[in-house]
Amino acid sequence: MSKPDERPASIALSCPTPISRYDHVLLAHGGGGRMTQQLIDSMFGPAFANPALDARHDGAVLEAGGTRFAFTTDGYVVKPIFFPGGDIGTLAVNGTVNDLAMCGARPLVISAGFIIEEGFPMESLARVVESMAGAVREAGVQLVTGDTKVVERGGADKLFITTAGVGIVERQGPNIGPAALRAGDVLLLSGDVGRHGMTIMAQREGLAFESPITSDCAPVAAPVLAMLDEGIEVHCLRDLTRGGLATALCELASSSRLSIELDEVSVAVDEAVKGACELLGFDPLYVANEGRFIAFVPESDAERALEIMKRFDVAAGATRAGRVKADGLPGAAVLRSRIGAGRVLDLLSGEQLPRIC
Amino acid sequence: MSKPDERPASIALSCPTPISRYDHVLLAHGGGGRMTQQLIDSMFGPAFANPALDARHDGAVLEAGGTRFAFTTDGYVVKPIFFPGGDIGTLAVNGTVNDLAMCGARPLVISAGFIIEEGFPMESLARVVESMAGAVREAGVQLVTGDTKVVERGGADKLFITTAGVGIVERQGPNIGPAALRAGDVLLLSGDVGRHGMTIMAQREGLAFESPITSDCAPVAAPVLAMLDEGIEVHCLRDLTRGGLATALCELASSSRLSIELDEVSVAVDEAVKGACELLGFDPLYVANEGRFIAFVPESDAERALEIMKRFDVAAGATRAGRVKADGLPGAAVLRSRIGAGRVLDLLSGEQLPRIC
Repeated sequence: MSKPDERPASIALSCPTPISRYDHVLLAHGGGGRMTQQLIDSMFGPAFANPALDARHDGAVLEAGGTRFAFTTDGYVVKPIFFPGGDIGTLAVNGTVNDLAMCGARPLVISAGFIIEEGFPMESLARVVESMAGAVREAGVQLVTGDTKVVERGGADKLFITTAGVGIVERQGPNIGPAALRAGDVLLLSGDVGRHGMTIMAQREGLAFESPITSDCAPVAAPVLAMLDEGIEVHCLRDLTRGGLATALCELASSSRLSIELDEVSVAVDEAVKGACELLGFDPLYVANEGRFIAFVPESDAERALEIMKRFDVAAGATRAGRVKADGLPGAAVLRSRIGAGRVLDLLSGEQLPRIC
Repeated sequence: MSKPDERPASIALSCPTPISRYDHVLLAHGGGGRMTQQLIDSMFGPAFANPALDARHDGAVLEAGGTRFAFTTDGYVVKPIFFPGGDIGTLAVNGTVNDLAMCGARPLVISAGFIIEEGFPMESLARVVESMAGAVREAGVQLVTGDTKVVERGGADKLFITTAGVGIVERQGPNIGPAALRAGDVLLLSGDVGRHGMTIMAQREGLAFESPITSDCAPVAAPVLAMLDEGIEVHCLRDLTRGGLATALCELASSSRLSIELDEVSVAVDEAVKGACELLGFDPLYVANEGRFIAFVPESDAERALEIMKRFDVAAGATRAGRVKADGLPGAAVLRSRIGAGRVLDLLSGEQLPRIC
């Protein structure tokens, strides 16, 4: 794992390293950490500036024809393509469905763009498509449009899938997102962390553990929509993909200019995942998940929100895991350790796990 | 160029070669011709079956929250990335914007998923992003959400971009698409054909012509929306990308089970494009375009529609180019040659130009 830079996130993000320092794109530019942020800040952000993009959420929320809808996209380059608990197809469907849910939207339709390396086994493609069809049914969406490109041998590594999705935001009121965070909000965490990342890592390293590690890849829209349907005042949601829980908190603290405190004791990590992390030198807080999310709600709604989340298998292990603080370091996420000490969490400077999703 | 199979499209398409004949994905499965159709018919279609996907249009048209919207996606793997008249960025924006226009939708927002090879020059990425920003402005849309993945050297060929888009369908009435085609409809063609494909081919082969060939890459929504705004009863639209004009006509004839006749004399081909096609053995009818489309309108609206199209630079060369026939071979597209002879057009069996878009 790359060593996090020493500066607190709030300072680091307001003085990003100029992108011109890098003449070439590095793996870390796609890692979801600091260098991805810098690429967005210095290149994509200025080029395409508009309010929806500038909101820096998992998807864009827009109004058109009197309907409020969410729109999002993600590319999937995971290696290996098949892994315990899922494959690139389930990831590609659930990832986009989850990003829509994180906007408070009811996922409606998705698209899929396939980029396939010539010579990829037809049987493997069929398996991936079958997985996608299953994930689409499970998530209650429809895959309504797609595209297929094939590149010559060596022009791509087996199979990449880019999905996009559209969902309908039924709730009135302000958009769910970093801008709606308030001091005093309670941080709810939907379950244990680090399973997807360590599943992929164990596959790549050929590691076998006594209890096998399985990806948490799953759709999380159901508990989110249940909270909204039952009137929980959800301020912000974020799924914990690349960069894990710590990165999500850093980004939210930074965009909201608020301080977020995470209680280490409330973050569950599966024993096998913990073992793999120790063996390979990873911090589970920074490891990718594909079926976990955090929700920020006012204290008055927190217990009820937790009870709703726990009704669903995908969030059965939900915990109260922290809070937005009025008096903390603005723009920083802080880990409150088991013994009460505070440590500023930081975005990763390098790439932790290339091609994790 | 691959030799077209001898069977008429109507027969060939109703008896697709079983997909299991191919153990591996071939370049032609991504070529937009017969094998792409077979992959869709035998794998994607059955796995994801739903009315929007089954409509087999350039995008899906859906209704949600009382709003009718269009949704589409396309992946771009063009090689080389930069070419006369555009680059992968302009293609990725215009291609998706044009697919929305082909659904009769006003393009509203697009997403972009980047898959970048480690080591790709940052300056080239900046050039592509700048082109995209220009194309987004020109098309009057916003790029509101995106994703960046980086794969290791050799894991991808430089840069792939997958865009998706959402547009609003303002017109009431039946969806624009193959199902709305009627015998007697006039086929309007927006300009000369073959420029994008031969531009890429000339670049790859290192050919120089006296008058250089430039891609036609451009947004075509303006003339389409003008026709709709002025009450033209547009039945079907299709942009002429992979597989060119001939493939578009074959697909439309096949999905509508109608017969479409194309007048060879009405199809303009630039002299340099013609020369390059002759030199390299391509049929311009099958060569890709990125700023050309066809529209089918009733005879009563045809002259007015043509006049509207010609107001716009991108369709200044529009012609009446054929018709939907009541008495032709159902499901077949037929080329009426300069001397009056008829020839059934067919989908390409193989791959004509890999990585043309």
